Amino acid sequence: MVPRQVPRWSAWIFQATPAWRRTTCALGASVGQQRWPRFPWRMCRPLAFRGCCSTVPRVPGVMLTSERYPVQRLPFSVVSEEDLAAFERIIPGRVITDPEELEVANVDWLKSVRGCSKVLLRPRTTEEVSCILRHCHQRNLAVNPQGGNTGLVGGSVPVFDEIILSTALMNQVISFHDVSGILVCQAGCVLEQLNHYVQERGFIMPLDLGAKGSCHIGGNVATNAGGMRFLRYGSLRGTVLGLEVVLADGTVLDCLTSLRKDNTGYDLKQLFIGSEGTLGVITAVSILCPPRPNAVNVAFLGCPGFAEVLQVFSTCKGMLGEILSAFEFMDAECMQLVMQHLHLTRPVRESPFYILVETSGSSADHDAEKLDGFLEQALGSGLVTDGTVGTDQNKVQALWALRERITEALSHDGYVFKYDISLPVERFYDLVIELRARLGPCTKHVVGYGHLGDGNLHLNVTAEAFSAALLAALEPYVYTWTATQQGSVSAEHGLGFKKKDVLGYSKPPTAMQLMWQLKALLDPRGLLNPYKTLPAHA
Amino acid sequence: MVPRQVPRWSAWIFQATPAWRRTTCALGASVGQQRWPRFPWRMCRPLAFRGCCSTVPRVPGVMLTSERYPVQRLPFSVVSEEDLAAFERIIPGRVITDPEELEVANVDWLKSVRGCSKVLLRPRTTEEVSCILRHCHQRNLAVNPQGGNTGLVGGSVPVFDEIILSTALMNQVISFHDVSGILVCQAGCVLEQLNHYVQERGFIMPLDLGAKGSCHIGGNVATNAGGMRFLRYGSLRGTVLGLEVVLADGTVLDCLTSLRKDNTGYDLKQLFIGSEGTLGVITAVSILCPPRPNAVNVAFLGCPGFAEVLQVFSTCKGMLGEILSAFEFMDAECMQLVMQHLHLTRPVRESPFYILVETSGSSADHDAEKLDGFLEQALGSGLVTDGTVGTDQNKVQALWALRERITEALSHDGYVFKYDISLPVERFYDLVIELRARLGPCTKHVVGYGHLGDGNLHLNVTAEAFSAALLAALEPYVYTWTATQQGSVSAEHGLGFKKKDVLGYSKPPTAMQLMWQLKALLDPRGLLNPYKTLPAHA
Repeated sequence: MVPRQVPRWSAWIFQATPAWRRTTCALGASVGQQRWPRFPWRMCRPLAFRGCCSTVPRVPGVMLTSERYPVQRLPFSVVSEEDLAAFERIIPGRVITDPEELEVANVDWLKSVRGCSKVLLRPRTTEEVSCILRHCHQRNLAVNPQGGNTGLVGGSVPVFDEIILSTALMNQVISFHDVSGILVCQAGCVLEQLNHYVQERGFIMPLDLGAKGSCHIGGNVATNAGGMRFLRYGSLRGTVLGLEVVLADGTVLDCLTSLRKDNTGYDLKQLFIGSEGTLGVITAVSILCPPRPNAVNVAFLGCPGFAEVLQVFSTCKGMLGEILSAFEFMDAECMQLVMQHLHLTRPVRESPFYILVETSGSSADHDAEKLDGFLEQALGSGLVTDGTVGTDQNKVQALWALRERITEALSHDGYVFKYDISLPVERFYDLVIELRARLGPCTKHVVGYGHLGDGNLHLNVTAEAFSAALLAALEPYVYTWTATQQGSVSAEHGLGFKKKDVLGYSKPPTAMQLMWQLKALLDPRGLLNPYKTLPAHA
Repeated sequence: MVPRQVPRWSAWIFQATPAWRRTTCALGASVGQQRWPRFPWRMCRPLAFRGCCSTVPRVPGVMLTSERYPVQRLPFSVVSEEDLAAFERIIPGRVITDPEELEVANVDWLKSVRGCSKVLLRPRTTEEVSCILRHCHQRNLAVNPQGGNTGLVGGSVPVFDEIILSTALMNQVISFHDVSGILVCQAGCVLEQLNHYVQERGFIMPLDLGAKGSCHIGGNVATNAGGMRFLRYGSLRGTVLGLEVVLADGTVLDCLTSLRKDNTGYDLKQLFIGSEGTLGVITAVSILCPPRPNAVNVAFLGCPGFAEVLQVFSTCKGMLGEILSAFEFMDAECMQLVMQHLHLTRPVRESPFYILVETSGSSADHDAEKLDGFLEQALGSGLVTDGTVGTDQNKVQALWALRERITEALSHDGYVFKYDISLPVERFYDLVIELRARLGPCTKHVVGYGHLGDGNLHLNVTAEAFSAALLAALEPYVYTWTATQQGSVSAEHGLGFKKKDVLGYSKPPTAMQLMWQLKALLDPRGLLNPYKTLPAHA
């Protein structure tokens, strides 16, 4: 891993005085990193590991999922030479059986789960996906659809030997309408590349997440990704206008409309948004892009307590109104981790909590005036004790890096137990405090950060190594606590393989029953992304 | 009908000069009307018609649906005395069999379809709805869920003798969170009353439509209502956070979460949004309300041609950015109709097209400055020839009335053929022009208006009376034309009874097949709102 250094950067610094003032700092030497850096696993993931297995090399330390978890292979067929020949006829030259290439696709980014698939398919067109799925359906072969493989719940890699169906080569923009901002593209387009594409045309993608440099838009939709722009532009359930999907038997379902309004019949595309590839394979997406803002400001603030964080949020909503585009928070231990592992520099005085507020608007002057008013109020009332504001792209990127790279910093800290929960904001941080008291010294860190504006807490616990005892102290405690607050045990990461058995903490039996019925309707043989999303049906 | 007069009102008037100026007009005498007036059908609908039928009185001129349309009653049971007694045990005193009360519920607002139900049920609780549906399921009795009965496609009234299940008494707010703006309420709450409720607490409802004074939030969700705020706050698919639904067999499906993010399993609530009561009966809604804007401005503009309307839209999006909250348009014939039938006054010089632009923001000064900049640009470049701006509530309401009351004006003009279609904006008005040429003098008016910002055209054709020949000239022409443009044959009104057979113009056979499968899964006996939304399955 190459640490990205942010030793210093140019930013507006202000101090907590009733009449706060801005002063300019010297521009540092290392401000060139991207605001949302490409996830570095492409650099650190070994492409040519040689392990103990003759067909699939082992990433050291990553156990096979089937060895770590009590999961039984379902009675799907095993890929035969005849199957490989059939695939080769459908997508000549794009049937991958090389163990080294397969290794990358069999292990998730967190290196927490590991399948043993023997074949990776790289179709370029919807028709090819259709032919592949039709063949798999006839042969009873299970399929693991894979986008950028950036998921955090083990949904994007096979559990056993499922065929990996990659969207990597389905990366063409189909159309873009420069008045409406409606983009239609294949599912394998990388989010960051799409954002560049639409930015050049005066728009931005309605979603943004740390993994933008690798994740595919199809995967974003399949997992109903949230991310940093959710507060402003809302859910993919509103911004995705149409989908093209290939069903389990190879049928192509064309709902790829580019209309903001369409009330003709049931909105079938919603079935596939957030269903993690278990109901169909998304092959193309139509999505509404908001106009590119003329001005973006980021304020990074230190806060003396969590009660003050909540008050800042209310003040912020009231005073920034329609230009508020992000309200993120991180605690002191998060800051410690990004400083320790990534050598980032804390831009404000040490505080128990830090807040990142972003504004995006059409008038730099108006936005600055609103932001100044808010900051004056927040500082004057003591809700915020220190802060810095970034107004140019480099400063904005550097401030965002502190928040966005926490996941990366955590991965350097040891084994990470990850929780991604929705809670009522007033109880947002209580679980972190309770867990610190409950777990005591057997952990390295218990940290809380996330999208406070959306009520979405990322709760992470690090330890020297995986520990069954620690896991038992965490689960089901975290889930029952969340359920007691009417929260969600998966706010934005989905359930995938690792969280599927906790569905019942957030959904009643009636709902689970209907989910099983939908799965049975759309994929009666259970071939699509098996062992994921839904617990095994009793 | 009591016409609402808007002879004059106080507004900022400006003329099309390169340096446009504002002058204040005298405040008129009749500015007291509501911005979004309660639909007047409560006044004009006779509650005590006596007709030719001994059990269900006839509204003059409204044929029974079964007489006008080629539709066969399905083999459901007929309500018996025993059924009535069972209902009386479930909801004592709220089983309505009085013909006069039934009359109101059997006929739609447009007076275009008419059922002959013999019983109307008014539950107050979800448990009561559940017991009713369980009984109906056991007895094979068909049910027509009904909210405010404001739909425009015949979805809200029975086709034959379906039991009418009204949500009128399910009108309680369950909770409101004054930090997040999340409202949880029963399905029968009237939209306008909810808006008042949340406005007092600093928020607004994310949707607004002409029928707000009567429509129920449950009906809004069941029909995926669009309306005036769609451009700014997006679809109910994004703003509805949770639903409670009673399924066809009486099972209560509790998905009534109040979380912005929840990625646990399939998002079942989406099945019921826009499914027009055919998959389940919505009994409670959790919805995210945006903050109440501090400043609202409305500009009403005259435009010399449709090309200019489109250019104004682009200019508007660029210059007003995040404060743009509506972009509505109407043609000259619409203005003529609201003047003729409702005695409203045209606030600007006569023009071929009129545009209503609304801004909503957190700073009156900033918004005014942005709006002034836009208007200066639009007038200076000749895109707009005349205009007036309303900044206080009365003026804003008066300007909105011109757009909102077009539906009402049309209903006074004769028989109305109504189309509600989505089109690419560049083809938005072509169909109106083509239809005028095609239909010639056999119509009174062919008008176009609607939510241009959402690509949603309301195309209406009026004639002295219903004419089969005119209908044949209109259909399927309008639908095939729309399909050729990849448009939607129902943008926001839904399909209900009257449009269900045109689904195939906007959805491929594969999609229709899956819709039938979903209906069969959720309502295998077809009891819920039969004859609606989906065409009969071959």
